[in-house]
Amino acid sequence: MENSSKIIVRYAETDKMGIVHHSVYPIWYEVARTNFIKVIGLTYSQMEEMGIMTPLVGLTCKYIQPAYYEDELVVKVNIGKLTPVKIEFQYAVYKTKENKLINTGTTVHAIVGKNLKPINCKKMFPEIYSKLESLIG
Amino acid sequence: MENSSKIIVRYAETDKMGIVHHSVYPIWYEVARTNFIKVIGLTYSQMEEMGIMTPLVGLTCKYIQPAYYEDELVVKVNIGKLTPVKIEFQYAVYKTKENKLINTGTTVHAIVGKNLKPINCKKMFPEIYSKLESLIG
Amino acid sequence: MENSSKIIVRYAETDKMGIVHHSVYPIWYEVARTNFIKVIGLTYSQMEEMGIMTPLVGLTCKYIQPAYYEDELVVKVNIGKLTPVKIEFQYAVYKTKENKLINTGTTVHAIVGKNLKPINCKKMFPEIYSKLESLIG
Amino acid sequence: MENSSKIIVRYAETDKMGIVHHSVYPIWYEVARTNFIKVIGLTYSQMEEMGIMTPLVGLTCKYIQPAYYEDELVVKVNIGKLTPVKIEFQYAVYKTKENKLINTGTTVHAIVGKNLKPINCKKMFPEIYSKLESLIG
Repeated sequence: MENSSKIIVRYAETDKMGIVHHSVYPIWYEVARTNFIKVIGLTYSQMEEMGIMTPLVGLTCKYIQPAYYEDELVVKVNIGKLTPVKIEFQYAVYKTKENKLINTGTTVHAIVGKNLKPINCKKMFPEIYSKLESLIG
Repeated sequence: MENSSKIIVRYAETDKMGIVHHSVYPIWYEVARTNFIKVIGLTYSQMEEMGIMTPLVGLTCKYIQPAYYEDELVVKVNIGKLTPVKIEFQYAVYKTKENKLINTGTTVHAIVGKNLKPINCKKMFPEIYSKLESLIG
Repeated sequence: MENSSKIIVRYAETDKMGIVHHSVYPIWYEVARTNFIKVIGLTYSQMEEMGIMTPLVGLTCKYIQPAYYEDELVVKVNIGKLTPVKIEFQYAVYKTKENKLINTGTTVHAIVGKNLKPINCKKMFPEIYSKLESLIG
Repeated sequence: MENSSKIIVRYAETDKMGIVHHSVYPIWYEVARTNFIKVIGLTYSQMEEMGIMTPLVGLTCKYIQPAYYEDELVVKVNIGKLTPVKIEFQYAVYKTKENKLINTGTTVHAIVGKNLKPINCKKMFPEIYSKLESLIG
């Protein structure tokens, strides 16, 4: 199960303070989510083609230590909560070298169709739903 | 007091769902914060030159309605809490046309020096601190 | 005619060198293009809804002077060349305070439909085409 | 020699056209440059600590085919030209699956000190210069 994604900090991700800009972490969470979701046997792209979109309704980030250009990081992700209409992911970002936790976060996603209206994932896509359920932890 | 900043959604800020990517809102919060902070008689740039850096330690966002390319938005900001070592800003994003609230959020910032070590803002910069205090609300 | 767009440099647009990251200028060009195009009586959004997409096929940037956080800039834009299937825009970025040219660039766009296949703009949208033609200069 | 860097397209890198936004390619070039430069026995970070900064003075991109979310790409890079005060890199981006060229580009960098004033790399850092020279191709 690919619940760990490696990130190397990009130059463009830094700001004039010399550290990674805080708006970048949600993008890394998304990279980790993209890898993680494959365990259900579908890519995120395929889910979207089937008509399952998951726009964010909530985001939290806790910044513990800064990250710097060229740092190697690992983003760990798992599913925190799941209902037929909502899904919460939890993230922890580590600096590989010192195995130090530098950031934690959560994202809450609505489950909607292509028109961005809510759908009941459990009813419409029971197989996908039960696979997602098996990932809670 | 400039606690309202106008934003026009940029094309590059949208994603393949056709809406603004969630990682963009913290950047808009920052635009609003930059304008807001001027009321203390200093720009953010000048504060940083004086050695007051304010990296994020916390971020929360609640996404209520999506924003679209070319939408005109207003970001309102105020200071929620202030201590000598920490400052919390609160944000509300409105769609101008319908005067509809589409997003709310908070950012918590450590107050540190150029070396990113904590400083006591109240002791080191009493004038700036009391001006910040006057903005709470 | 709105061929000048004001930009205030955002914190997130800077990098660890303390200057605006070079990848940001094409985004500013796009902001200027969005404003400029309205002179034909349509917004970019409306053009896309009608089925006129204009993905980039070429980009050039010349960086003359760096831009810094909170700098006020003006991006000037005009149409350089136009054919029924392609359009070139030209840009010049000025620092407002010193009225100094800091960056120039060009973007070349294919004119395509929603499926990203080429269309002949002159034949399919003659009114829009002739308005675009009138902007060359 | 690490002149090939693997990229997986991030969700945040797409735009409402459903394809990667054109401003992202220069960021991928930079990722490739970061990996490539290590062959001289230094990281980019170390070069910057030594006082060798390389801000862009020129950028060109040619967009041949669009890239999509989750696409696996390879960015190839080499040094095109080198003088004591300037360096040009050349890039080619391939879609791994079809081994198809989708984008080419160049970046020209000034070689400057921490104060962003030009330095003569050949005189000040002869070893680094001769290693860079050996990479021309």
